[in-house]
Amino acid sequence: MQAIVKAARAPGLSVKTVPKPVAGPGEVLIAVRHAGVCGTDVHIADWNPWAQGRLRPPIVVGHEFAGEIESVGDGVTGLRAGHLVAFAEYIVMPATNVLTLDGGNIPTEVGAIMDPMGNAFHTVLTAEIPGSFVFIVGCGPIGCFAVGIARAAGASKVIASDVNPKRLALAAKMGAHVTINAAKDDVVKTVLAETGGEGADVVCEMSGVPSALHQAFAAVRLGGRVQLLGIPDGDVPVDFANEIIFKGITVYGVIGRKMYQTWHQMRRFLTSGQFDPRPVITHKFPLAKIDEALAAIRSGDAGKVILEIV
Amino acid sequence: MQAIVKAARAPGLSVKTVPKPVAGPGEVLIAVRHAGVCGTDVHIADWNPWAQGRLRPPIVVGHEFAGEIESVGDGVTGLRAGHLVAFAEYIVMPATNVLTLDGGNIPTEVGAIMDPMGNAFHTVLTAEIPGSFVFIVGCGPIGCFAVGIARAAGASKVIASDVNPKRLALAAKMGAHVTINAAKDDVVKTVLAETGGEGADVVCEMSGVPSALHQAFAAVRLGGRVQLLGIPDGDVPVDFANEIIFKGITVYGVIGRKMYQTWHQMRRFLTSGQFDPRPVITHKFPLAKIDEALAAIRSGDAGKVILEIV
Amino acid sequence: MQAIVKAARAPGLSVKTVPKPVAGPGEVLIAVRHAGVCGTDVHIADWNPWAQGRLRPPIVVGHEFAGEIESVGDGVTGLRAGHLVAFAEYIVMPATNVLTLDGGNIPTEVGAIMDPMGNAFHTVLTAEIPGSFVFIVGCGPIGCFAVGIARAAGASKVIASDVNPKRLALAAKMGAHVTINAAKDDVVKTVLAETGGEGADVVCEMSGVPSALHQAFAAVRLGGRVQLLGIPDGDVPVDFANEIIFKGITVYGVIGRKMYQTWHQMRRFLTSGQFDPRPVITHKFPLAKIDEALAAIRSGDAGKVILEIV
Amino acid sequence: MQAIVKAARAPGLSVKTVPKPVAGPGEVLIAVRHAGVCGTDVHIADWNPWAQGRLRPPIVVGHEFAGEIESVGDGVTGLRAGHLVAFAEYIVMPATNVLTLDGGNIPTEVGAIMDPMGNAFHTVLTAEIPGSFVFIVGCGPIGCFAVGIARAAGASKVIASDVNPKRLALAAKMGAHVTINAAKDDVVKTVLAETGGEGADVVCEMSGVPSALHQAFAAVRLGGRVQLLGIPDGDVPVDFANEIIFKGITVYGVIGRKMYQTWHQMRRFLTSGQFDPRPVITHKFPLAKIDEALAAIRSGDAGKVILEIV
Repeated sequence: MQAIVKAARAPGLSVKTVPKPVAGPGEVLIAVRHAGVCGTDVHIADWNPWAQGRLRPPIVVGHEFAGEIESVGDGVTGLRAGHLVAFAEYIVMPATNVLTLDGGNIPTEVGAIMDPMGNAFHTVLTAEIPGSFVFIVGCGPIGCFAVGIARAAGASKVIASDVNPKRLALAAKMGAHVTINAAKDDVVKTVLAETGGEGADVVCEMSGVPSALHQAFAAVRLGGRVQLLGIPDGDVPVDFANEIIFKGITVYGVIGRKMYQTWHQMRRFLTSGQFDPRPVITHKFPLAKIDEALAAIRSGDAGKVILEIV
Repeated sequence: MQAIVKAARAPGLSVKTVPKPVAGPGEVLIAVRHAGVCGTDVHIADWNPWAQGRLRPPIVVGHEFAGEIESVGDGVTGLRAGHLVAFAEYIVMPATNVLTLDGGNIPTEVGAIMDPMGNAFHTVLTAEIPGSFVFIVGCGPIGCFAVGIARAAGASKVIASDVNPKRLALAAKMGAHVTINAAKDDVVKTVLAETGGEGADVVCEMSGVPSALHQAFAAVRLGGRVQLLGIPDGDVPVDFANEIIFKGITVYGVIGRKMYQTWHQMRRFLTSGQFDPRPVITHKFPLAKIDEALAAIRSGDAGKVILEIV
Repeated sequence: MQAIVKAARAPGLSVKTVPKPVAGPGEVLIAVRHAGVCGTDVHIADWNPWAQGRLRPPIVVGHEFAGEIESVGDGVTGLRAGHLVAFAEYIVMPATNVLTLDGGNIPTEVGAIMDPMGNAFHTVLTAEIPGSFVFIVGCGPIGCFAVGIARAAGASKVIASDVNPKRLALAAKMGAHVTINAAKDDVVKTVLAETGGEGADVVCEMSGVPSALHQAFAAVRLGGRVQLLGIPDGDVPVDFANEIIFKGITVYGVIGRKMYQTWHQMRRFLTSGQFDPRPVITHKFPLAKIDEALAAIRSGDAGKVILEIV
Repeated sequence: MQAIVKAARAPGLSVKTVPKPVAGPGEVLIAVRHAGVCGTDVHIADWNPWAQGRLRPPIVVGHEFAGEIESVGDGVTGLRAGHLVAFAEYIVMPATNVLTLDGGNIPTEVGAIMDPMGNAFHTVLTAEIPGSFVFIVGCGPIGCFAVGIARAAGASKVIASDVNPKRLALAAKMGAHVTINAAKDDVVKTVLAETGGEGADVVCEMSGVPSALHQAFAAVRLGGRVQLLGIPDGDVPVDFANEIIFKGITVYGVIGRKMYQTWHQMRRFLTSGQFDPRPVITHKFPLAKIDEALAAIRSGDAGKVILEIV
């Protein structure tokens, strides 16, 4: 079978023929249909210091998959060939790590991106959203998912900021009432103007950019809530008195998700049709075009990039 | 000026000319534009025992008003003639009891029904709605408002029951995904079927009918939440073991509303356009047609009935 | 080994010699040191309709145990002979169901009653206790545990009611500031007097007696919380308007416990010494005296009754 | 009457005879019995830049008072001469700002410190305390109050740190199970050792010292809560990834208090006797000894310092 392989301790990825794995006891073999490509894959391709410290080539690359079960190993119950499933790690994996896609109600192209969507769901739904003014800082794929989730969960107004007009257009497509180009416009002033001078009830910081972090603290209302998902490099100086304490705000560090509860919420939002993540998928490539997929991400203009195996 | 008057201790209401009041210190005089008619007004017209025990005719009848400030008394600041306002009690009232309608963003026909809408908002939004399966028991005006609020607040599925097909049609218009005719269909079985066998996450009981109360307890999922707004007459036998304790549910008695917070949420939902209560207003009459307004309510087919003063 | 046995489909229990079990793969064999006796055991002894419908003698009787691990089966890791553990079901049980008693910090006589204590912890700690006025209705063993837990969790005043003076004395020993003899005194009037006329913030109903249920609803303050653990037989007529809705209260049906969280809290309260359940243990008997243990429970005067295996 | 006066725009305070004020309409005149002295008063005495920017001498100095009502102005109802009250601002003040001391159940020396105690109550009780491991960073008067409140609210273990052994002794007197001398010992290591390696469930940062802030983030457990009351000067570099996001913690900026709710809780804790703040009062001086009072605060060894007017 074809696989994307990190063959050596050097930049680059290649598409190679590798042996098809077999499902051992308690495992399932999945024929992948769609796979998400994310920033981590770019790091692996580029062979950056993080990748150099963690990986030992040759390895097959990829996570964020969905596909069809081709066979099941001994002792697997409740799953059988033909089931559509989503998962997070390998092509052969323990049956207990597999999520079924509700009898086909959730397509595999959506199943393949449930991992990053889960981060967006957890970030948004651990705040009180109905009737709230929500400000999403950073419109990468997870930020754009967050825009749509906030809309579907009853936000009265969703404001989104980014420096890239293409990403802002994607946020608007996902339902943002207001988009702010942080490269040109005064972000905090705009948020205050759009919220009657009070600031946003909930701010979701998805960028990890220090200047955006400060905008998050400045744009949240007194007593509001800032959800932090974006991860800054290194230290960021914080004026605790004026940015946090005197504002009486709550700051929540979002790590991962509440496994069961987040998947449960996600399925509800997806199967009801109240949230559709597909506009965020801006690029689909066949497996062989992994280099083009990586280039799309590197351009900074892409939403979610996925590979299709047909 | 014209007013609806309860002239004597006997059934009936009449439209009479009465002196126009004057705003004293700290008061405002409001030219009413729209007024809601509700079950209480029917009781007053019918001169039922409740009315006989509380009222001393002759009196001017009505509450649930919205209109335009015509003049303000001494010492009133922040309000002036021309402002659109909503209120709950009298035609001349303390300035502090008056709610402005956001510079005209909320029309007076909506302002006139903010009181019963407030009950619906408090009932729905004191539960966790985004991604939930919500079951509304009873589709009178407040139940129909609740359907729309649950949709706007991100419910994944809204199910509504009533014995009256016209009211069910209204609930469907307000966004119910599923309506159940409790006179014909098996309510609990249908709710279970529509919720994958688990039951509803949140049930709002708006009818006060004993059989419907039992359906509420039977249709909520293990660990779910039942909000009680409908008021039963007399005692209802409850099987605490099986209806409440073994199900591990939370039951909340909804009395009135959290004044400030509920009005604040209501304004957000109304001015954002995410919730529009107007389909629930099925009848509008001029003041003089108060008898027709009462007849519409008595028919059991009406949504919200309001009077227009033009 | 000696065991308490239900030998036949008739009233009575007997102490017999039975074969000592062996720990299979993934199991542990526990030498029981202390075992709680509870109302269920009385039902089994009496051979009441519930017992007749569920049990097929001959069986070994008992649950609520603590003891020392004597041997472990294949594949058991993290547990070994000599560990003190508490558990809920059988003498040989899956290693995963076993709770270790913190290196001996929790004695086995306490370990044996962690199951009913867990119900008390869950009932009390799912309400907001610090600074609250808490009213415990019913002072059986679980009610008396609840008194001590409420004190340890920072209640400002704990009031307890029962019809039995010995049980009230036990509640006082566990820290109740006020005890009310429901057979003689006006329960609701006393609670109101002790709470400045407002009623209790939190009421825990542990008796299942219909009159006590009504006292719970009457004694809770407006907007307060009623936790229901006691299970009434049959239907109880409820005046929803005046007992629940107009009071704006929350009613919570307590079934079981949040497994992990409740055990975790319980260990904290026990190992810190802030809560000591031992005064509730009024009777200890050797295994052979099971009939005396049952008689103590039937008398209605006992707190918790346990068996000691020495 | 005698008063402490800031006479000129220069360092120093003086005790002078000033005219006794008169209660106007809606006001009450209070004979002060006890007054707290706090860091703000030191700033005023020292005439630091903050004081220079805000104050226009000559002024009477002081806040944090309690005393007896001497007379009431026209239109004051519900208060009369002889009532003991606590308040936050002036010697003649609006009747609506005055809190009565529960018919004398709360002494005026305690009434005089209800303002800083309120900060401690709000900081501690906006976290979940029963059964928690609580770490108080900084043992000034508010930190020492927090220790006692956490104990009274059911914490399983209270750990306190400071660089001053006298303050640590005070924290121990208020109920800290463990005290850590941050000048000598490894704070984070000790907290981890005292919490089974997991870290504290709740950390209250009361010092505003940057190194202590980092200890707060390092000592809180995964998913725990950090309450920030201490106010750092200037910016503090924060490693958001490792100190907040990857730990999944909640950070809450404590500004002031929930006025009604905090006073209500405070009264409950004080009148029940479950919390006694008096050990924190280390120094009492007559009004004339204001300089000694300020010196006691400047020494860094004092708990709460109050003035007595007899």
